[in-house]
Amino acid sequence: MNNGSPKVLPDLIERARQVGAKLYQGDRASQALGMRVLDTTPGCARVAMHVRSDMVNGQRVCHGGLIFTLADSAFAYACNSHGPNTLAAAASIDFLVPAREGDELTARASELWRSGRSGLYEVEVTNQRGERIALLRGRSHQVAGSNLEP
Amino acid sequence: MNNGSPKVLPDLIERARQVGAKLYQGDRASQALGMRVLDTTPGCARVAMHVRSDMVNGQRVCHGGLIFTLADSAFAYACNSHGPNTLAAAASIDFLVPAREGDELTARASELWRSGRSGLYEVEVTNQRGERIALLRGRSHQVAGSNLEP
Amino acid sequence: MNNGSPKVLPDLIERARQVGAKLYQGDRASQALGMRVLDTTPGCARVAMHVRSDMVNGQRVCHGGLIFTLADSAFAYACNSHGPNTLAAAASIDFLVPAREGDELTARASELWRSGRSGLYEVEVTNQRGERIALLRGRSHQVAGSNLEP
Amino acid sequence: MNNGSPKVLPDLIERARQVGAKLYQGDRASQALGMRVLDTTPGCARVAMHVRSDMVNGQRVCHGGLIFTLADSAFAYACNSHGPNTLAAAASIDFLVPAREGDELTARASELWRSGRSGLYEVEVTNQRGERIALLRGRSHQVAGSNLEP
Repeated sequence: MNNGSPKVLPDLIERARQVGAKLYQGDRASQALGMRVLDTTPGCARVAMHVRSDMVNGQRVCHGGLIFTLADSAFAYACNSHGPNTLAAAASIDFLVPAREGDELTARASELWRSGRSGLYEVEVTNQRGERIALLRGRSHQVAGSNLEP
Repeated sequence: MNNGSPKVLPDLIERARQVGAKLYQGDRASQALGMRVLDTTPGCARVAMHVRSDMVNGQRVCHGGLIFTLADSAFAYACNSHGPNTLAAAASIDFLVPAREGDELTARASELWRSGRSGLYEVEVTNQRGERIALLRGRSHQVAGSNLEP
Repeated sequence: MNNGSPKVLPDLIERARQVGAKLYQGDRASQALGMRVLDTTPGCARVAMHVRSDMVNGQRVCHGGLIFTLADSAFAYACNSHGPNTLAAAASIDFLVPAREGDELTARASELWRSGRSGLYEVEVTNQRGERIALLRGRSHQVAGSNLEP
Repeated sequence: MNNGSPKVLPDLIERARQVGAKLYQGDRASQALGMRVLDTTPGCARVAMHVRSDMVNGQRVCHGGLIFTLADSAFAYACNSHGPNTLAAAASIDFLVPAREGDELTARASELWRSGRSGLYEVEVTNQRGERIALLRGRSHQVAGSNLEP
C-alpha cells in the first residue's frame, strides 16, 4: 500500500487522518448515534459507540441494524482513507452475541484487498469485555470525486 | 403456512398483528429513528422511514447503516410474526441507489423459506418514486420464548 | 432493458442467444459437469444438471459446491448475455434442502439490477419436484472485451 | 475449545483426523475434482486442488464455482472436525484474482465462532504464488448424527 520510501508513508497516514476528520464533520448520522472515530489510518479505522437506551429493540437487545451501522461507519472511514470518494456497494454481517444497553462497542475495519475501483473490508465489532459481537464484510466501490476536494 | 381451514388463517393473521404491536412497544430503536410499522402479516412486514437530516453521512447521502436498519426492522417483524422469539443470525445487503435527505423509504420483508428453527427473508427497500434502494437477505434463528408471553 | 422499438428486442434476444452458445463452447467446466444451458435471454439464463454419483460428498448428499457451481454457471450466462465480458465479483448462497444423487437440478438466473459496470443477479435452484434447493445472489463486474469478438 | 488437560487436546486432534479420513472416503465429489485433504485439526482444514483443463470456463479462467467448491470442501472438513454431523447452511464468497489452468490452489478453513448448533468459518484460497484468489465465509448448522458412527 506504499512504496516504503521515508516520505510516502507519513503522507498516506496524514491523508487518512485528514479524510477521517473531514468526513466526520458532515457525518450527522454517526454523530447522532454518538459514534466516536478513534482513528483512521490507510485502509483502516476504529469507531466506538455506547449502546444507549434508545438503541434497544422489542427483544430488549441492541438493534442489529445499529450494530451494522457502527460497523458500516468504520468500513466507510477505512475505504475512504485513501482519498477518492468511495461508497459501500454491499455488505454481509454475522451476528454472534447480542449487545445490550450500556455496552461499549468498538468496530475495527481493515482492508483485505483493493484492486481498481473495488475493495474488500473486514470489520470486527467487540464489546467492553473483548467479546466478538458481530463480523461484517463489506465491498466498496470508488466513484467520482475526492474526499479532500473543497 | 396454514392448513386452509376457515379458522386458522384469521388466527395466524391476528397473531402476526399482535406480535407486531407488542414488539413495536419495546422497540425504542425503531421508534427513535421514526420508523412506522405499516403492517405485519404471517411471514411478512412493511416498515417506513423518513430520511431525516440527522441520517445523512459525510458523503451527503443517507447512511447505509440506517437503510440496513430499516430493512432489518422489517425483517425482524416478519420473522417474529409467527410467535416464537426469533433473532437475526446473519444478513447481507446490496446498495443499489443512494437515498437522500427527505426521501420516504419503505422496506417490504417477505419469507422465502422456513424450516425448523431457521428462516430466510428477502427485504426490498424502495423510495417514494418506487426506485429500489437496497435489497437485503436475512437468515433468522428461533430462540427460546414467545413474543406473546407476558 | 430495451427501448421497445420493434427491431431492438429481437436483436437483444439474438445477441443473448449467441453469447450463450459461444461461451458454452469454451466452458469446459460446465460441460464436464454435464450441465445443459436451456436458454439465455437478456439478463436471464436457465442451466440444468443431473446429480451424478461422483457429485456426492462424505455426507451422502450432493456437494454444496456443485450446487453453487450450477447456480454460478446460470449467473455467468445471465450477466454475460448483454455482450460485454463480465465476471462474478461476489456471490452468496443459502442452502435450503439437500440435493441427492439422481436429482435433476435447474438453476434459473435473473437480473435484479444493473448500473454502470455492476450488476446483481438472483439464482434459484430447484429439483425435479419443484422444491427450492438453494438461492444464490451474485454481483457481477464488467471488464474489458466483448463475448462476441473473435 | 478444550480444557487444556494433557489428555483432551490430543484426543480432539485425533478425532479431527479420523473424521477427515472418514469423510473423505465417501466424498466422491472432492475426489473426482482431484482435491487432496492436507490436514484436518479441530475447527480447521486445508484442502488443495490442481486447476485442470476441464475446470476452465468460457472466459478461459477457472470456473468460480470450482473455486467455491474447493473452499466449501475445506469448510466442510473444518466444521465437521468436532464429530457431530454438520452441514453448510450458507456461504458468501468474494472472488479477488482469477485462477488459471495449471494453478495449484490451497483452501485454508478456520473457525471464527461456534455456539450451540451454529458455527462461522473463514476460508482463504491462495494459489502457488501465495496470491489470495478468493475469500469465503460460511455458516454451518449441526444436524443429527455423528461422523464417527458406523
